[in-house]
Amino acid sequence: GYGRTGVQYYENVDGDDRTNESQIVSRLRMNIDASTSTDQGVDFGARFRLQWDQGHGSRGEDAATNAGKLYVTSNGLTVEVGNVDTAFDSNGLIYETELGVYDRSVGFSDRAGSFFTYKSDAYSDVDRVGVRVLYEIDNLIVQGSYVDPDQSGWNEATSTVIDGVKYFHDVEEEYGLSIDYIWNERLELSAAYVMNGAGVKDNDIFFVGARYAVMDNARIGLNYVDASNDGVTGNELDREYVEQGNTIAIYGDYTLADGLTNIEAYVANNDAEWNETDNAFGIGVNYDLGGARLGASLQRDYDERVTADMGVRFDF
Amino acid sequence: GYGRTGVQYYENVDGDDRTNESQIVSRLRMNIDASTSTDQGVDFGARFRLQWDQGHGSRGEDAATNAGKLYVTSNGLTVEVGNVDTAFDSNGLIYETELGVYDRSVGFSDRAGSFFTYKSDAYSDVDRVGVRVLYEIDNLIVQGSYVDPDQSGWNEATSTVIDGVKYFHDVEEEYGLSIDYIWNERLELSAAYVMNGAGVKDNDIFFVGARYAVMDNARIGLNYVDASNDGVTGNELDREYVEQGNTIAIYGDYTLADGLTNIEAYVANNDAEWNETDNAFGIGVNYDLGGARLGASLQRDYDERVTADMGVRFDF
Amino acid sequence: GYGRTGVQYYENVDGDDRTNESQIVSRLRMNIDASTSTDQGVDFGARFRLQWDQGHGSRGEDAATNAGKLYVTSNGLTVEVGNVDTAFDSNGLIYETELGVYDRSVGFSDRAGSFFTYKSDAYSDVDRVGVRVLYEIDNLIVQGSYVDPDQSGWNEATSTVIDGVKYFHDVEEEYGLSIDYIWNERLELSAAYVMNGAGVKDNDIFFVGARYAVMDNARIGLNYVDASNDGVTGNELDREYVEQGNTIAIYGDYTLADGLTNIEAYVANNDAEWNETDNAFGIGVNYDLGGARLGASLQRDYDERVTADMGVRFDF
Repeated sequence: GYGRTGVQYYENVDGDDRTNESQIVSRLRMNIDASTSTDQGVDFGARFRLQWDQGHGSRGEDAATNAGKLYVTSNGLTVEVGNVDTAFDSNGLIYETELGVYDRSVGFSDRAGSFFTYKSDAYSDVDRVGVRVLYEIDNLIVQGSYVDPDQSGWNEATSTVIDGVKYFHDVEEEYGLSIDYIWNERLELSAAYVMNGAGVKDNDIFFVGARYAVMDNARIGLNYVDASNDGVTGNELDREYVEQGNTIAIYGDYTLADGLTNIEAYVANNDAEWNETDNAFGIGVNYDLGGARLGASLQRDYDERVTADMGVRFDF
Repeated sequence: GYGRTGVQYYENVDGDDRTNESQIVSRLRMNIDASTSTDQGVDFGARFRLQWDQGHGSRGEDAATNAGKLYVTSNGLTVEVGNVDTAFDSNGLIYETELGVYDRSVGFSDRAGSFFTYKSDAYSDVDRVGVRVLYEIDNLIVQGSYVDPDQSGWNEATSTVIDGVKYFHDVEEEYGLSIDYIWNERLELSAAYVMNGAGVKDNDIFFVGARYAVMDNARIGLNYVDASNDGVTGNELDREYVEQGNTIAIYGDYTLADGLTNIEAYVANNDAEWNETDNAFGIGVNYDLGGARLGASLQRDYDERVTADMGVRFDF
Repeated sequence: GYGRTGVQYYENVDGDDRTNESQIVSRLRMNIDASTSTDQGVDFGARFRLQWDQGHGSRGEDAATNAGKLYVTSNGLTVEVGNVDTAFDSNGLIYETELGVYDRSVGFSDRAGSFFTYKSDAYSDVDRVGVRVLYEIDNLIVQGSYVDPDQSGWNEATSTVIDGVKYFHDVEEEYGLSIDYIWNERLELSAAYVMNGAGVKDNDIFFVGARYAVMDNARIGLNYVDASNDGVTGNELDREYVEQGNTIAIYGDYTLADGLTNIEAYVANNDAEWNETDNAFGIGVNYDLGGARLGASLQRDYDERVTADMGVRFDF
């Protein structure tokens, strides 16, 4: 796991004079792992996580426990059951625009749409179940995942009528797929697709990304995500999910000659209609302490609000 | 602790067409132990448990924590305080009819009545307290336990009147006793008794069992449990606890020549009036992977419902 | 962490014939620590705690998790962020009047007033944040801490009117300071001050203490705490906090020639108006088992109620 702490600044929305714009933000994550190997060389393992996040609604008061993940691994093939890491969320490039010690990217990650992920706190439904299959060989990673928000089948026949509109629960089964390939240790290619993301019917999201190491200490990348189906309006469904639009980002990072200081940046464009601006950008820096890192970032989001952070993170 | 996952099938009760009969069922249990030894060779220790059970009401959303157990051990004598393993629940043969990777026995274990056990999730009353004394010598294990559901004494004077009937809380102190003896490494003899099981007045349960190794790789056993007092109706108490009846089971297991495959089965008879049938039976198989095991079972319960399961379990 | 269990007796208040005066009281505390060191020799670390307390309102049903603490240490200087140990609560002498295996002092510790401490269970507000700076050099320890009960700023503008009186939330920022000095390995001097203790405006508490080793195996000490501002009534605030008064205590301990048995005692005087008596006292004994300890105490509080305890504690 890891710990991180520091200060985040987020410009208030117009008219909000109550919330402090600068706050101390910390996280403490401890993974509790257990594993065993059979005589045939098959590895079985499991994970719980304890996580606390300063100010978080469900992980802020104390360390949240979560649902368990079980896995079996043999010859590069891993099968996970339970609270699994989903394929889409585990893609190799999708979060690579993120900056600073908090790994935030208001221009790209925040517009990648809604989909299931490994859950660090409690399920909302005890009948949620996930399965993930992961295959790693040389420089190729292929993975697929499946999450059923309610395997009992009870909620599927349930709908709620509000103001004459029939709302169904998020009970669709989510299917995800992700591929990562590294060519010649220079070029990273990634793609991912998720169907019925987060259990919402027709919420399909597509991601593709590429990154090239132009020098040994410099990389440049291009990411594209289509989360424009995120808010679906259909015959039976009329959700209030906000449509996230299509986003394209150019990003890169450069390591200074000291080998410790890494400078990173991105520029992103999103076409959602409700944006104040269609462009977001950010710049960040990380300094490697050898076991810990200092980091800072400065970003502007699609509401034209500025955010900045500075802090330290250590892994254990 | 251990992890296990697989699929369980349970035939629906008549008229239920909503619940999926086959579901993925997983458990992840991690015991968190700590101990120390004094200069005199006395061992002190303690345990918490983190447990998640797919679909479980109070352990399904995330890993439940539980109340602590403290113990002291010296020369075969162990005293536990707190959330103790109770004597009745720790008997050596009472759960030996259980089959497959999930260790289920719808014919016997499910009719053993209500009594306190080591609790893997939260107490319902902060004032519950338990004590257990365990003595092990050679091939004899004797143990006694005591659980007070409310040592504060507050609930004892409290009753609730529903429809003119006076209901008392479960506030009786439970006393349990268990003896296990192994003769000549061949014959296992066990008996257990619990008074005021689960804190319910006059809910007394009696168990006796024997198992004999007819061959080095084959055992046959006979278990009997009288949980017929489980639902008590008296002057002051008129509980809705269901009377569980008397149950007798013949069971055995046989290990194939490979030394890894174990086949097990039971036939049980229960005399509760509300049974559809008085006979239940099951057959199971386990395959030892050396560090993990594959298992499956097929059973029919007293409602004439069929259940089956298949999965894998690994201990760590 | 540690475990402890035993029996506590507390004389009931007049008219209470429902509560059992003697109860089994156990605690199980497990600290979950993680740390790492950078190449420059700076140590980063973090802590979660699992704690269960028999009968406790929020830690009695199961092991409570808590908010995380993160720290960095280098050359005697430690900075903590999050759920920090506060300066006032970490003073070296403030709890030294405590007796027996439960480390209780109804005469002094219970009148030390209200202030923030390291929290073993959940925050009541996800926006609480703390910082502590600790400096240790030779025989001097200086520390300061700061706790903001709500860094978001939302509650500061919020008040509740009950029966025409305007109540504000506990939103003041608490500042604490503590100094410990040991002179010649004989004389311990300590002082501590906290402003706006527990987030309550004008709740300022002052502590000063000294202890001298009159022999190698005997110490005598004098503690004074002024918690008389604890219940503040002002123009805008009319809290029901009970004023705790000023307390002075003489205490000491003596180790017998066996080197294992330690006898300890205190006499304390408190001037709060609502006391039955202004004098409290207690005597205790601890026996070192080498890795565990047996202890007992007998005390009388300011209500003239007698309390006694006996038990065992083991650290791991």
